[in-house]
Amino acid sequence: MRLVFSLIAYSLAPLASHFSIVIFLILRGLEMDSATLQEEIESFFESAPPLKDSAKITDKLNQFIQFDSPSLGKGRRVVCVTSGGTTVPLEQRCVRYIDNFSSGHRGAASTEYFIKAGYKVIFLYRRGTCQPYCSSLPEDPLLECFEVADDSGFQVRQSHSEAVKGGIRNHHAAVAGGLLLKLPFTTIFEYLQMLRIIASSMRSLERHAMFYLAAAVSDFYVPWKSMAEHKIQSASGPLNMRLMQVPKMLSVLRTNWTPMAFCVSFKLETDTKILLEKANMALKKYKMHSVVANELLTRKEEVTVVTGNGNISVRRDKTRPGSEVEDPLVELLVNKHSTYIKDASLSK
Amino acid sequence: MRLVFSLIAYSLAPLASHFSIVIFLILRGLEMDSATLQEEIESFFESAPPLKDSAKITDKLNQFIQFDSPSLGKGRRVVCVTSGGTTVPLEQRCVRYIDNFSSGHRGAASTEYFIKAGYKVIFLYRRGTCQPYCSSLPEDPLLECFEVADDSGFQVRQSHSEAVKGGIRNHHAAVAGGLLLKLPFTTIFEYLQMLRIIASSMRSLERHAMFYLAAAVSDFYVPWKSMAEHKIQSASGPLNMRLMQVPKMLSVLRTNWTPMAFCVSFKLETDTKILLEKANMALKKYKMHSVVANELLTRKEEVTVVTGNGNISVRRDKTRPGSEVEDPLVELLVNKHSTYIKDASLSK
Repeated sequence: MRLVFSLIAYSLAPLASHFSIVIFLILRGLEMDSATLQEEIESFFESAPPLKDSAKITDKLNQFIQFDSPSLGKGRRVVCVTSGGTTVPLEQRCVRYIDNFSSGHRGAASTEYFIKAGYKVIFLYRRGTCQPYCSSLPEDPLLECFEVADDSGFQVRQSHSEAVKGGIRNHHAAVAGGLLLKLPFTTIFEYLQMLRIIASSMRSLERHAMFYLAAAVSDFYVPWKSMAEHKIQSASGPLNMRLMQVPKMLSVLRTNWTPMAFCVSFKLETDTKILLEKANMALKKYKMHSVVANELLTRKEEVTVVTGNGNISVRRDKTRPGSEVEDPLVELLVNKHSTYIKDASLSK
Repeated sequence: MRLVFSLIAYSLAPLASHFSIVIFLILRGLEMDSATLQEEIESFFESAPPLKDSAKITDKLNQFIQFDSPSLGKGRRVVCVTSGGTTVPLEQRCVRYIDNFSSGHRGAASTEYFIKAGYKVIFLYRRGTCQPYCSSLPEDPLLECFEVADDSGFQVRQSHSEAVKGGIRNHHAAVAGGLLLKLPFTTIFEYLQMLRIIASSMRSLERHAMFYLAAAVSDFYVPWKSMAEHKIQSASGPLNMRLMQVPKMLSVLRTNWTPMAFCVSFKLETDTKILLEKANMALKKYKMHSVVANELLTRKEEVTVVTGNGNISVRRDKTRPGSEVEDPLVELLVNKHSTYIKDASLSK
């Protein structure tokens, strides 16, 4: 299915003291076959501003995936956790953009549980969002967790002492130990270009690779080349802008980029009535192994894992203070991933 | 002048395997007198979700403005510095929103220079943006500035040691000394409601009050009551949304809320050709005392202060490493504010 979103905006010249601006946002949907999807994807990547440091990122990824201390043995599993929302710039010299709300808490917390379960994690996150081992800290940890000490230095506040020490220690240990690779993005262009590079680096891991796609990805974008160079003036003459639907990379990731990887995507809705239906649709359409369905208001308490064999409800253990729904969620998905790896050995 | 932005979006039901969605974004502009502006402002505040903790904020403000150690004397000047961008939620249970890019560096750095010049600063800032005394620190200071120490604790890295110590010390000293009050916002609704409360608290300061409006404020908004409750489905039946222009609060702030305060607004453009013209227009239309014109790419090097007596170009002192354009900018505006206060005494 092909969707072409076109935003055609034009203003009528001021007439006396009145003026009118009419913007038509036209979204046209046409049937699309896989050849067309491929074309749309190529067109997306061609239209994107070149990713900075792409060679460096590839090097980092290859080193990270290949590095393994001898004691850990071969066949270490690697998961790519995506986290936070992508932005859609509306101007090349970007002042305004459309953003998707996501604190990144799900991705950051899940990363900790994957590392605990023995995975190496590639953490593809939105700049400024929640970081692994730091998700329980206040918004501005430097100013909120530290206080001035007597010797004109500073010290960590008693109330945050354990959280800060644990956060810094565990975070640095995971990075230094080759268990955590952090790659930041801001725009939808950076996100999808980096996801493609990561997928390409993980391809050789075959069934030991997993994608845990918790990022909130934009639905449509303005192609870089047709984007207004300057800040859009709301009342200044003709303006033509085309908004294209972001090609559904999930299909391509699953089918072309890493056909053997275990793939989990997320579906967030605010309306419970349509949530499971939409999650099921995503499962089939993009051939995901699992889709995690979550509702905005209850997402920290429970989620539903939708699979080809039915739905599983996962809840936070309320009897344990500080427990998180990501703990049983990651446990369940790790088990499913284990089964997926074993199935391949059996069929050999 | 009255601008009504209407976004009327409707989808045509799928026809066979094809479907079309047509969204019309209609921006209509009509002449508006001040009575209508007043109506629009009332309608904006009525349509806004109630501000949480508004009584607490008022208390904090009154305490902050009234508090003065005896040694400092009477007539302390107070400036409200606004900083960072406001968001426009597109759904009540907010998943998607339009955002304005702003790191908050200008507001954070300027706050330091205002405090140095003897002002008390009300810092109205976007959550997560740059903080005073911390603007030279890396994006994620907790994880980037600290390292694990030998005794299984942690320590600040040598390279960041001075910046971190200075940042924490100066920041806490300013807050504890009653020189800095920090109030965070996220949405355009929170921002304008808080600005109104602040203006009301500062009214009694008369000419000793100053507004330094560096925040990047959204141009239009979706009234809360007409906002979609749930996440917008791009292809699911009729959808009607109205986008209204955010009323120009600058006029009302200047004329009604705090008629005696010294007001400085900011104009950011990416196109130098129209920048000064637009800044001049803002100066006259909103009766500002000064408008700071800045261009996106050069904004850290130079700005132009547009006043009724002509334009003044302000540049960073390149001979001093680490110097900031906010240093001479604030110096200039403090001098203008002094003249403004003196003028009143002379005319008595």
